[in-house]
Amino acid sequence: MHNFSYWAQAFSKHFSEQHFPAQPANLYEPCNYFLAIGGKRVRPVLCLMANDLFDELHPSAWQVATAIELFHNFTLVHDDIMDAATLRRGLQTVHTKYNVNTAILGGDVMLIKAYEYLAKVQPAVLPAILHLFNTTATEVCEGQQLDVDFEAEQEVSLESYIRMITLKTSVLLAASLEMGAMLGGTSEGNRRHLYEFGKNLGIAFQIQDDYLDAFGDPASFGKEVGGDIKQNKKTFLWIHTQAQVNAEQQKLWQELQTRKDANKIAEVLELYSATGADVWCKELQDTYYQKAMQHLEAVAVVNARKQHLIEVAQLLMNRTN
Amino acid sequence: MHNFSYWAQAFSKHFSEQHFPAQPANLYEPCNYFLAIGGKRVRPVLCLMANDLFDELHPSAWQVATAIELFHNFTLVHDDIMDAATLRRGLQTVHTKYNVNTAILGGDVMLIKAYEYLAKVQPAVLPAILHLFNTTATEVCEGQQLDVDFEAEQEVSLESYIRMITLKTSVLLAASLEMGAMLGGTSEGNRRHLYEFGKNLGIAFQIQDDYLDAFGDPASFGKEVGGDIKQNKKTFLWIHTQAQVNAEQQKLWQELQTRKDANKIAEVLELYSATGADVWCKELQDTYYQKAMQHLEAVAVVNARKQHLIEVAQLLMNRTN
Repeated sequence: MHNFSYWAQAFSKHFSEQHFPAQPANLYEPCNYFLAIGGKRVRPVLCLMANDLFDELHPSAWQVATAIELFHNFTLVHDDIMDAATLRRGLQTVHTKYNVNTAILGGDVMLIKAYEYLAKVQPAVLPAILHLFNTTATEVCEGQQLDVDFEAEQEVSLESYIRMITLKTSVLLAASLEMGAMLGGTSEGNRRHLYEFGKNLGIAFQIQDDYLDAFGDPASFGKEVGGDIKQNKKTFLWIHTQAQVNAEQQKLWQELQTRKDANKIAEVLELYSATGADVWCKELQDTYYQKAMQHLEAVAVVNARKQHLIEVAQLLMNRTN
Repeated sequence: MHNFSYWAQAFSKHFSEQHFPAQPANLYEPCNYFLAIGGKRVRPVLCLMANDLFDELHPSAWQVATAIELFHNFTLVHDDIMDAATLRRGLQTVHTKYNVNTAILGGDVMLIKAYEYLAKVQPAVLPAILHLFNTTATEVCEGQQLDVDFEAEQEVSLESYIRMITLKTSVLLAASLEMGAMLGGTSEGNRRHLYEFGKNLGIAFQIQDDYLDAFGDPASFGKEVGGDIKQNKKTFLWIHTQAQVNAEQQKLWQELQTRKDANKIAEVLELYSATGADVWCKELQDTYYQKAMQHLEAVAVVNARKQHLIEVAQLLMNRTN
């Protein structure tokens, strides 16, 4: 059994091989550019680690992990168009560096390539993997749609927001773990516990992401702190504050939604603290984190084998960047 | 065994069932809108007919045919964005009726839905079907990229153009037939002959499409006649004329590329006739049609069983709309 950084290194090496032919260059060069931007490759590594939790790597594990990472990158390329995001990890997004059409078609071909890797999976496990992969992929699209929908809405309930981020980001973490568990040949029960571990960990991670966007250390956060506030994004902090502002704070809160001046971020942060959104956010994060850990505990393998996954969960939660 | 219109009707009925849930409505309503626009459903019907050529319908035939049609519609939705097309079959395209983001995400979810149908295919045939489906899907994206690339190029060789339309449109017709043949349980040789039948028929069809865009009867063509000429699209007629204009015609031909006046279409048509592009086009179409028919003849089943496919080929070639 190996830890996160072992698998991350092994996967990165594996994934750095060329996925696409040279031609047509205008289609594949942008794909290669984007895949090389990198990232932590968390999802495929979780898949490999979940397989490793139960058994030696399945002969199809690399294909499944590669398909997961390609799928994830496809969603990033298309989401960046929809969100009009110009930068990702400090580098130009595909539609910014090239154009929207290239980003549409490049994303499409990445998604199809993901399925090409899946098609190589051993027939004995292929139908189950493919089914979970498809269900998850559909959910990720639904989550993205809800995210787009929320932008136009005046109010978003906590429940709807959690549903949106579950679909948009958590189910892929969850399914990556479950696919690994499938490859490890474990029981339905263990598979579902790993799925729930990933799902709840993903929600906890997103709560933290929303928190850090407001209260993170600008030096280590990696993104601009206050970006969500600038855009009036309905985050965990926003939703709590919207529900908790008292009559006195209400006027300022409403006004802040329309302001674009330099003081806006500082004043919103003050309101977040005044309504206790910051403390509530950390508590909510911990609730989901604990839920995740309970599901990991419930997986029927000896505790010693779970150590590497516990470390990953801690790593994701203690991150400051 | 049944003919094209029998299968077209059966498939339309089958395909008209809901593919998507009600929510999120902003994601699925546009998909349902586009799928209801219809079309001849040629590709899935060819798949069913190729299965029918060899044996009773395979239990997975409807799933494969449905996946093919969903894939085809996904390409149309995304291509319409790239081509900035406002109408398709007289109705608004998805990005026109809704917006670009909806069309991107709607296309994505249609493609994933295609794979959901494929995931239900019986395990015995699944890997082979999935492999051909993926190869074809990748080729269709490559064809679309070449089509986009050609717009920016001054000159396109006949060979490159044929390669582009083969990838963009013919391989899906070809693969639809081959997947049907796979489901029919026939030999590798028969499968490849059906593939080549579809590929060459697709090329012949595209040559005819280019011809009708210039010389078709406006009353029955269904699209605006001369649309390609207006946009200086590099069609079969354009490529032949570009290569064949004599020194005297050269100046007018060059000038016409930059003109946008009402006489442009008539003058280009005159040049097409003067260089013999119209006659050459019909001959080239016939060459590919004959090639297609030779491959159909080479399929090792009794001639009587091929009659319905011969009729389809004739139907596609004699179309005036």
